Amino acid sequence: MSIQKIASFAAGEWIAPGAGARQIASAITGAVIAEAGNGALDMQAMLDYARGTGGPALRAMTFHQRARMLKALGQHLNAHKQALYDISFDTGATQSDHMIDIDGGIGTLFVFASKGRREMPDDHIYLDGGIEQLGRTGSFLGQHVCTPLHGVGVHINAFNFPVWGMLEKLAPTLLAGVPAIVKPATDSCYVTERAVRIMLESGILPAGALQLITGGVGDLLERLGMQDVVSFTGSADTANLLRSNRHLLENSVRFVAEQDSLNASILGPDAVPGTPEFDLFVKEVSREMTAKAGQKCTAIRRILAPESQVGAVIEALSARLSKVVIGDPRAETTRMGALVSARQKADVLERAALIGAEAERVFGDPENFTVEGADKDKGAFLPPMLFHCADPDGAARVHDTEAFGPVSTVMGYRDLDHAIDIAKRGQGSLVASVITHDPAVARRVVLGAAAWHGRIYINDRVSMKESTGHGSPLPHLVHGGPGRAGGGEEMGGVRGVKHYMQRTAIQGSPDMISAIGSKWVPGATEIEGPAHPFTRRYGELSIGETLHSAARTVTLEDIEHFAAFTGDTFYAHMDEAAAARNPFFPGRVAHGYLLLSFAAGLFVEPNEGPVLANTGLDNLRFMKPVVPGDSVKVRLTVKQKTPRTDDYGEVRWNVTLTNQDGDQVAEYELLTMNAF
Amino acid sequence: MSIQKIASFAAGEWIAPGAGARQIASAITGAVIAEAGNGALDMQAMLDYARGTGGPALRAMTFHQRARMLKALGQHLNAHKQALYDISFDTGATQSDHMIDIDGGIGTLFVFASKGRREMPDDHIYLDGGIEQLGRTGSFLGQHVCTPLHGVGVHINAFNFPVWGMLEKLAPTLLAGVPAIVKPATDSCYVTERAVRIMLESGILPAGALQLITGGVGDLLERLGMQDVVSFTGSADTANLLRSNRHLLENSVRFVAEQDSLNASILGPDAVPGTPEFDLFVKEVSREMTAKAGQKCTAIRRILAPESQVGAVIEALSARLSKVVIGDPRAETTRMGALVSARQKADVLERAALIGAEAERVFGDPENFTVEGADKDKGAFLPPMLFHCADPDGAARVHDTEAFGPVSTVMGYRDLDHAIDIAKRGQGSLVASVITHDPAVARRVVLGAAAWHGRIYINDRVSMKESTGHGSPLPHLVHGGPGRAGGGEEMGGVRGVKHYMQRTAIQGSPDMISAIGSKWVPGATEIEGPAHPFTRRYGELSIGETLHSAARTVTLEDIEHFAAFTGDTFYAHMDEAAAARNPFFPGRVAHGYLLLSFAAGLFVEPNEGPVLANTGLDNLRFMKPVVPGDSVKVRLTVKQKTPRTDDYGEVRWNVTLTNQDGDQVAEYELLTMNAF
Repeated sequence: MSIQKIASFAAGEWIAPGAGARQIASAITGAVIAEAGNGALDMQAMLDYARGTGGPALRAMTFHQRARMLKALGQHLNAHKQALYDISFDTGATQSDHMIDIDGGIGTLFVFASKGRREMPDDHIYLDGGIEQLGRTGSFLGQHVCTPLHGVGVHINAFNFPVWGMLEKLAPTLLAGVPAIVKPATDSCYVTERAVRIMLESGILPAGALQLITGGVGDLLERLGMQDVVSFTGSADTANLLRSNRHLLENSVRFVAEQDSLNASILGPDAVPGTPEFDLFVKEVSREMTAKAGQKCTAIRRILAPESQVGAVIEALSARLSKVVIGDPRAETTRMGALVSARQKADVLERAALIGAEAERVFGDPENFTVEGADKDKGAFLPPMLFHCADPDGAARVHDTEAFGPVSTVMGYRDLDHAIDIAKRGQGSLVASVITHDPAVARRVVLGAAAWHGRIYINDRVSMKESTGHGSPLPHLVHGGPGRAGGGEEMGGVRGVKHYMQRTAIQGSPDMISAIGSKWVPGATEIEGPAHPFTRRYGELSIGETLHSAARTVTLEDIEHFAAFTGDTFYAHMDEAAAARNPFFPGRVAHGYLLLSFAAGLFVEPNEGPVLANTGLDNLRFMKPVVPGDSVKVRLTVKQKTPRTDDYGEVRWNVTLTNQDGDQVAEYELLTMNAF
Repeated sequence: MSIQKIASFAAGEWIAPGAGARQIASAITGAVIAEAGNGALDMQAMLDYARGTGGPALRAMTFHQRARMLKALGQHLNAHKQALYDISFDTGATQSDHMIDIDGGIGTLFVFASKGRREMPDDHIYLDGGIEQLGRTGSFLGQHVCTPLHGVGVHINAFNFPVWGMLEKLAPTLLAGVPAIVKPATDSCYVTERAVRIMLESGILPAGALQLITGGVGDLLERLGMQDVVSFTGSADTANLLRSNRHLLENSVRFVAEQDSLNASILGPDAVPGTPEFDLFVKEVSREMTAKAGQKCTAIRRILAPESQVGAVIEALSARLSKVVIGDPRAETTRMGALVSARQKADVLERAALIGAEAERVFGDPENFTVEGADKDKGAFLPPMLFHCADPDGAARVHDTEAFGPVSTVMGYRDLDHAIDIAKRGQGSLVASVITHDPAVARRVVLGAAAWHGRIYINDRVSMKESTGHGSPLPHLVHGGPGRAGGGEEMGGVRGVKHYMQRTAIQGSPDMISAIGSKWVPGATEIEGPAHPFTRRYGELSIGETLHSAARTVTLEDIEHFAAFTGDTFYAHMDEAAAARNPFFPGRVAHGYLLLSFAAGLFVEPNEGPVLANTGLDNLRFMKPVVPGDSVKVRLTVKQKTPRTDDYGEVRWNVTLTNQDGDQVAEYELLTMNAF
């Protein structure tokens, strides 16, 4: 097998490793398969390329355009993923590990693509939250917006997920409109490099949007500024080195870290042997210990069970772990492959020894285990190792030593409060799980321990079929945790996109706020269109285009007729005395739904036209009662437009109903689909 | 005048200054009026008191209870504010400065009290965003929650706003459920101390919720952990010292900084002399230069005007500034008081000299100005000083030197892009303003410069009556800025409360998510109540209590009758051929409002009872058309309950309409007010 040269992609060119490149060995055979790294990269040129070429090109696109770009990227990677599978085995990963890394990474692109189109506007400015009225009459308003940073996302990734680790950071960065420079860990950088080549060769990304450093980062950090973001995944030691960099601190360079984590899984007090939850717990723990050979920042390191169940848990877990076939990850029968490197194996053994000083090893012997289809001495193989710590209160290392491999420790707890205390001993984790069928147990754990965790995973017989696993960060949910876990947050849908944008509070008149957000707000100028807005196609309608309807008097006969027709004979509409006793009404009042219905009658243009359907209604508030004899009329204004398919888009209308005195009686947002 | 001893409040006791206390001089007379500081405080005891006594007491309260506490605190301070006014003059502040500091601070308490009750639940867990469906059938869901940190908020404040500076940090901290230790700047700590005494003597706060350090913080920072937050306002130098503290970094202690800021105000190209905007600009700039004698982190330091208007701006500003009476702040005629101290005055002069090397002083001479009613040589008085920098591109100090007093520099810009570039030279500011009547100018500034700013303030003839001022941070909006401004965020409504909470992604079955959030989600268990839910009082209703209605067939006659009655003869309801051409409908369909109306007829209990009114409706989506002959029925479930007054509360119901095949045709949330 020839030694592959793993290049960097810098300022538009692939640059092969130079003098001093580091050799990379196969996790399975120990043979050198690749080399990477050189000191010849011009960091300033890379930054200039990102900031000067990639950033402007991405910012010229809308959120929807960038979302479609992510979808295309995901589809392209999906079509070429076999090449990634093929080379990933050498990192020690099995095919099911590849599903997490490669398919999981591609799935992350798809989720951000979907969220970008569903939850963000087809525009350049994202509105964060609603309008704040800052004066009495509404002539001065506040609105938070998010706009892309003008810098670069520097992504420093861990070895364990060479594809997902890149894509889970890249998707929100690109969706925000920010270019990225990716620095993978050397041990598995050949997989990342291949994925980057596939993406770049697709031609989907604008020039400058993505660069790759497979060697050291040189003086890159010293050249970053307030518009840049460093997002790091790896060890606490490296994180501390980076976060204490004086240049980064003095320039308020955003720094996101996801680091060590001593994640706990709690077997609920109700989940005794014989329940579906007990079996589920054993299955989840076993999977988390062995998937990716335990090299997951979210893996279960501490197994908390009621003291009375500790024996049963150890027994069931040992039985399950004993069936795990360790060996060549290419073999279909293999359930657990190798660690990424001999160095990593040695590190795990060293840390397992620290844990071993406080806990007894009850399963797995690193000196005595079987490896199928590979040379145990040449590959970085280890067996799953289960420890039992009899005194979790007195112990320290089991709560602060992350053996980044198939290593976990069982601890007994006296009661749920004790379990919560032990979970908190991790001093901040990415995730804790609770396997319980009792919602009260789940709520108590959240109230007691959520402040120490970025994610709490609850599972039981109801959710187990669809549950996604203790150890799986999802693009929809935040990934990261406080304290020892680094204090950072990634993903979480649009939350993760905001890490690459600046939030700014905007203050101004309704016209200013409308223009900035491309969203009409009450008080802004009303535009008179050339015809009834229902006769105008999606593309013809302007934000602010307004229809004022004729008025209609609401009679007591209308109310009684509506009540009889619909069956809604609620006392406020039918019984003068009872209605008058009500704190909200002067006497009998019109039904809210009668008003909505009359409003539609007043504003609808009946003939076939570009309005395809009324798809929904939001934020309806009845503000003043309408009594018999009152007259209502409607203002209908185009508030916001969002394309939904190639054929039509959603129009959000602001609607107000006013009475004969000009008082607003109801306000809502109406949704229609309109043909392009 | 006797020298007042300014005590600290530590672990439940007032502790007077000890040996080595620092003397504090009046800003007006230079005479020593107070002393503060001692080295005898036991920082660990203070932390223990906050974490062990204050935190648990605050966490035992709901968000609504804490909001009511803030309101009571604001009312109590309001009743006692004269005492604060009386002693604040010695800081150099005028009565109108007191309005910003003291009334502004109290107003912040009221806004957070109001937002706590309107936007947060009467519960212990805040729901952040909506449900994420993580599986196909909805048996496994995600929901982000925020829970209070179990630590303490350490608030290190600047001298300029001894009351507002404390309260703007304290309000979100207490609302989150976190106790605070407040460390004011020594120069004005006697005002803060008085405000703390007023609050503590009210008995409104639980023990341990609020402590005060009027001296040094000793080893406090070294004792903080991952559940604590340090929130700092002050100089960049001190911020950098704090943020590079190794202990804070290694323990991922949250650190929020609000520091130097070279805020710019841009006169729009349209705002030529003679427009209301030109006059407004001159007024805003003049006010920002002189309010609080320019000692505001949000003050306008850089005045950007079109090159052609620079002369007019300098002339108009000079004319206005020349009318500013400087003198004893107690005098009603005084418009600008003194700086806080002689040291601060010297610092401003030193920095003004740096600016003077690049810009010409065109108004204000510190060697030659008049002070009314006070001794110019004893008090820390300065005149407003206006500079003109002819070459903003070549200059450096005018963009990075914050003279924290009545000092500002006019610069000319060639075109709007140039103005944006100059604004960005501040390398991150708390606020920039644009005075323009052109929404396109406002949007361009936002797109170009928002990433450098925490707030962008737009003002014109429309909003000027209600506008709150370039320099006024509001509790509704985020205060803070990127880069040089410190990279932090404060306030911003609930956003600011989240800084003292941990966000956690929760995963679990619908029953788990419902129980944790006290909010029913689709798929969770339905509870059968003892009677129709409309007959049950607010307090009797359980989350999840459900009514299943009878079914009703929708006939073509119903549709035609409804169309005739309401006037809604939209083609999808009336014209078979046109409806069938529509991509959403198989042919004529029922009106959405007909379905809503029939639904109400199906679920309403007509007799007088605890349901007072239908107040609104949210998130209505029509999911499947209903054609003539279809039969619909309703499920009505108690989703969430929120108390609104002493007499009634809001019930949010989840409502689904299903057809004869069990397919959901519509879903929405209905709001009613129910008597307690």
